[in-house]
Amino acid sequence: MREPAVPIVQAPMAGGISTPALAAAVCGAGGLGFLAAGYREPEAVAAEVAELRSLTDRPFGLNLFAPSGSPADPAAVERYAARIAHEGELGEPRYDDDHFEAKLALAGELAVPVVSTTFGAPTAAQVERLHATGCAVWVTVTTPAEAELALAAGPDALVLQGFEAGGHRGAFDDRASQDLGLLTLLRLVAGITDLPLIASGGICDGAGIAAVLTGGAAAAQLGTAFMLCPEAATSPSHRAAIESDAPTAVTRAFSGRRARGIVNRFMREHSDAAPSAYPEVHHLTAPLRRAARESGDPDRLHLWAGQSHASSRSLPAATLIKDLAAEANAALSAAGARSARRG
Amino acid sequence: MREPAVPIVQAPMAGGISTPALAAAVCGAGGLGFLAAGYREPEAVAAEVAELRSLTDRPFGLNLFAPSGSPADPAAVERYAARIAHEGELGEPRYDDDHFEAKLALAGELAVPVVSTTFGAPTAAQVERLHATGCAVWVTVTTPAEAELALAAGPDALVLQGFEAGGHRGAFDDRASQDLGLLTLLRLVAGITDLPLIASGGICDGAGIAAVLTGGAAAAQLGTAFMLCPEAATSPSHRAAIESDAPTAVTRAFSGRRARGIVNRFMREHSDAAPSAYPEVHHLTAPLRRAARESGDPDRLHLWAGQSHASSRSLPAATLIKDLAAEANAALSAAGARSARRG
Repeated sequence: MREPAVPIVQAPMAGGISTPALAAAVCGAGGLGFLAAGYREPEAVAAEVAELRSLTDRPFGLNLFAPSGSPADPAAVERYAARIAHEGELGEPRYDDDHFEAKLALAGELAVPVVSTTFGAPTAAQVERLHATGCAVWVTVTTPAEAELALAAGPDALVLQGFEAGGHRGAFDDRASQDLGLLTLLRLVAGITDLPLIASGGICDGAGIAAVLTGGAAAAQLGTAFMLCPEAATSPSHRAAIESDAPTAVTRAFSGRRARGIVNRFMREHSDAAPSAYPEVHHLTAPLRRAARESGDPDRLHLWAGQSHASSRSLPAATLIKDLAAEANAALSAAGARSARRG
Repeated sequence: MREPAVPIVQAPMAGGISTPALAAAVCGAGGLGFLAAGYREPEAVAAEVAELRSLTDRPFGLNLFAPSGSPADPAAVERYAARIAHEGELGEPRYDDDHFEAKLALAGELAVPVVSTTFGAPTAAQVERLHATGCAVWVTVTTPAEAELALAAGPDALVLQGFEAGGHRGAFDDRASQDLGLLTLLRLVAGITDLPLIASGGICDGAGIAAVLTGGAAAAQLGTAFMLCPEAATSPSHRAAIESDAPTAVTRAFSGRRARGIVNRFMREHSDAAPSAYPEVHHLTAPLRRAARESGDPDRLHLWAGQSHASSRSLPAATLIKDLAAEANAALSAAGARSARRG
């Protein structure tokens, strides 16, 4: 099955979870697979793109983190470091731009079919350069105001990230976020642009996909729904948390930027104290989180997950896409019948 | 037009906004109008029901506030009272159960067609008594766990209130809320019950209605969307705020219970300090808010509104329902065509 029954995008999940194998399986089943360039060196990103291309000849996407703007207050980071020092080995907090420019250039050189950004929009000039090499450009936004900013750069589509989504909130400014629910965000942004809108955040099944398509989305993007696939590099303790019905919350405790994860001890103890300081706090807690992942300790780990995580299915990605598409088609067809019946 | 083209419920809005005139106009246009019994004496509720019945012979709903369980810590309320003393005249903080039992009995006596509850579920015995008098019983829930509790009482439908909704969060326990987005809540609860689900929270247009119907809802409930109708008793400063694109946030500052309103000075200054103490803080701030409403001061007023408030339309309720239904039908029909095209 090559043509998607419904347009499903596999969300990029930085930190290793969205592997080339996952993206390839999604692409092979007619979805759009994504690689996550965030946190990686440009060389590693190039290697992943090459690996994905060895597995599929279908279009795919590559997600880049836009830089946060400016370094955080070092004193706030120091205070937080002192607070969590007893938790284990900490890293050196530092500001960086995640090699945004280099990765944009790389995406162009490699003619990546779809380049999406998170935490900000590329400039109009950057979009133009990507277009010149054949890349489509998508920008992730969380509010109508961010959509307006993104539209000024001339992208091809907007990814709308609802408050329900797992992992980092894509807000352009971590300190000024609005926490709009997905359906609200979709309808508000549909009022200001005719560009294709990709809806993401908390979508876990075919009826949810059908709902956002009916609400005006061109495609649905799912992340957590793919985290139990065998092709995803989700750690065992992360998988166990996703299968539970534990609540999620938004926290800066792990990275210094608001992100949604399954509530664990580290979040309970440190969320209130964590500063807005990304990527400084990300680097600070990296060794701690690595050790926790290796030792299977779910209480020192960022258990990123969307609000619907308990509905994730432990299925190969191709089977999952087939099931989701069939469910979505059934819901769309029932919607049409409903209209005909009442119209 | 008597038969609704699509099932639209007008959300009850306590505090005077949802008038009998608004409910009657909604009912007359084929929607389900609601009266809000919260904060009112039983006699006043009976008078409103009589007024509504003089305006329409269609079915309607009556919403009751379930009691909060137990009085709050008086010291916390005292501290908050001291903090906001400079804001103006304060009321006497007190605990009460909003005459829940008396209003339940009244709803039964009056054979109100639909009785919904917020902040908690009636007991199975209470539901049975309402059923005996011909009332259908709906319970408002904000999480799957609350849905499970509500289902045990044997209601006829669940109202699912997403995080996007304006006004009070319907959480059974104000201190343990999960803030689920509407679409996520809908899909999670659809997994545990076959009862009709009424989706509410941030829905502002026909495409949004069509989206939740496609996602499995039996009806869509809209509140803020009706607040600019001439039939609603929304104050001029509240109307002006709804027409703006100012952000909303969830606060306990006005009532001691989490509620979504348009951010104003009072919220900015006092939200962090406000205790979970409902209805004590509601009574404490009542004179202040009344004075602000009368003097047109939007900065001391609870500007309840859902996340989509900027999309509310200043139209008579009957026209609004007609427009929403037409939009929803168009979106449902497009969804069906999409399925046929791809299926």
